[in-house]
Amino acid sequence: MRFDVTTLGTGAALPARGRYPTAQLLNVGEELYLIDCGEGTQERLRQAGVNFNRIRRIFISHLHGDHYLGLMGLLSSMHLQGRTREVHLHGPADLREVVHLQLRVSQTYLRFALHFEAVEPRSGDLVWRDDRTTAHALALRHRIPCTGLVVREHEQPRPLRKDKLALVPPYRRSALKAGEDLVLEDGTVVPNAELTHEPPRPRSYAYCSDTAHAPELVPFLQGVDLLYHEATFTEQLRARAKETMHSTAREAAVMAREAAVGTLLLGHFSSRYKSADVLLREAVEVFPRTLLSSEGATFPVLARYPGA
Amino acid sequence: MRFDVTTLGTGAALPARGRYPTAQLLNVGEELYLIDCGEGTQERLRQAGVNFNRIRRIFISHLHGDHYLGLMGLLSSMHLQGRTREVHLHGPADLREVVHLQLRVSQTYLRFALHFEAVEPRSGDLVWRDDRTTAHALALRHRIPCTGLVVREHEQPRPLRKDKLALVPPYRRSALKAGEDLVLEDGTVVPNAELTHEPPRPRSYAYCSDTAHAPELVPFLQGVDLLYHEATFTEQLRARAKETMHSTAREAAVMAREAAVGTLLLGHFSSRYKSADVLLREAVEVFPRTLLSSEGATFPVLARYPGA
Repeated sequence: MRFDVTTLGTGAALPARGRYPTAQLLNVGEELYLIDCGEGTQERLRQAGVNFNRIRRIFISHLHGDHYLGLMGLLSSMHLQGRTREVHLHGPADLREVVHLQLRVSQTYLRFALHFEAVEPRSGDLVWRDDRTTAHALALRHRIPCTGLVVREHEQPRPLRKDKLALVPPYRRSALKAGEDLVLEDGTVVPNAELTHEPPRPRSYAYCSDTAHAPELVPFLQGVDLLYHEATFTEQLRARAKETMHSTAREAAVMAREAAVGTLLLGHFSSRYKSADVLLREAVEVFPRTLLSSEGATFPVLARYPGA
Repeated sequence: MRFDVTTLGTGAALPARGRYPTAQLLNVGEELYLIDCGEGTQERLRQAGVNFNRIRRIFISHLHGDHYLGLMGLLSSMHLQGRTREVHLHGPADLREVVHLQLRVSQTYLRFALHFEAVEPRSGDLVWRDDRTTAHALALRHRIPCTGLVVREHEQPRPLRKDKLALVPPYRRSALKAGEDLVLEDGTVVPNAELTHEPPRPRSYAYCSDTAHAPELVPFLQGVDLLYHEATFTEQLRARAKETMHSTAREAAVMAREAAVGTLLLGHFSSRYKSADVLLREAVEVFPRTLLSSEGATFPVLARYPGA
């Protein structure tokens, strides 16, 4: 099943240098989850050829403008396009008033149901569970309440071993994929492990933006396959990072190393950096499997087989 | 003195086909007035190389998202850039709450004074008067309260006739430019008209977006040099125009003809029109001096000398 993330914007609060504010699109089996929605996100989505109707959930981490100011325009466009499919909106409690006030003053009556669910930055809280994914909250450290996410796909069925397929009556296949043993007509029990492979471990994606260095999150990030972590500054500006409650690239890499994640993806680059390469160089010294996000780029969430 | 308008976005409610939502930048002697501010306006301004600090006033015609959703992002960027110069914000009364709520939830304390002045759609009301321009309201006809503008530059000084310059002592020049007669040392009065030219008539720009056909506005638009008028649909969709309270290109042209304006500028094109040429063709049949706005294009407000 497809599981990847497209970074629609990699800039920080002041958009510049061709960078856009934060927005990410998770594609899990062709169902889309929008994570943050900075100004202009609908235009980025259009450029990426995304059908807005496929977006089932929108998650807003916090109410700094560079993370949510594109939301009203996107909802409005969904409405004008005639959407009837419900939208689940997860965000800080105050977002409800921000959205409802603007719908009210524009006298907009959405054609679709907008289900608002308030999130709070309490690590481990369930944010959603649907037929594709389960998401839990991360308590990020920022100037205003800010919630990160760990999104996990569900357990996958155990693949049947092709060389043993002749043994298995077709009506028993789904039970075997679910982990049951096979009982033959003569009463012999064939253990599941002899008939199936170990399935790939469910893949997971974590989203940490915006946050000061928060080592207390390491247990919640342990072993995720792809960790997006903001890297607004280099170590040279560590004091500025502390003051504004952002992370340096090195701090992001330390989080990735301590949590033993698969891959680290950096973003939220300060407009002072003409190129983000300096941030990448700093991070790879601590955690080699680090990538830079870029506008419109897609990063697969790669499964690591058990023991890998 | 420079007096022109740059159309930053020419689309209607649903942005598409490379069109952006409505925003216009009036440049009057290098002081800037932003008229409407759809999503992404700050990016358009950046593309046009505009220094945000030169924007002294922002006018929001109404609270449909395609006319104001870029405002918070622009104010935030002005703040992050360290602006200290005050901003005058003119808009519907509800805009105050929309702005203040979003400043509050993001815990943003602007470094500059934001003077909010509520406008109401009452034709002829004074909206502002400063050292460059005077602006009066137009009561547009739309689904929610919507205010247009007529912006006029001030009377210009009377240019001195070069062939009579020797007659005029330098210390009397400003009095002559202001229209006074010249009294010579022997008491002879030289009428002002013999020493000065008629100055160009103060130029004027009118902004009508969004509105159903509103012939009652003609007296307020009489003789303006450049009339921007929305033209969302062609006559073929006149019923749709009526229902959504927009104008057809022909209706915009009828307004221009009845008000005997200098030039008509069309915008706010429905996303159904791949090219706006069909709207232009419809309008020029009624009013030949019609132009299509386009993203980033600048249109001078041309003075017509008396009698022209």
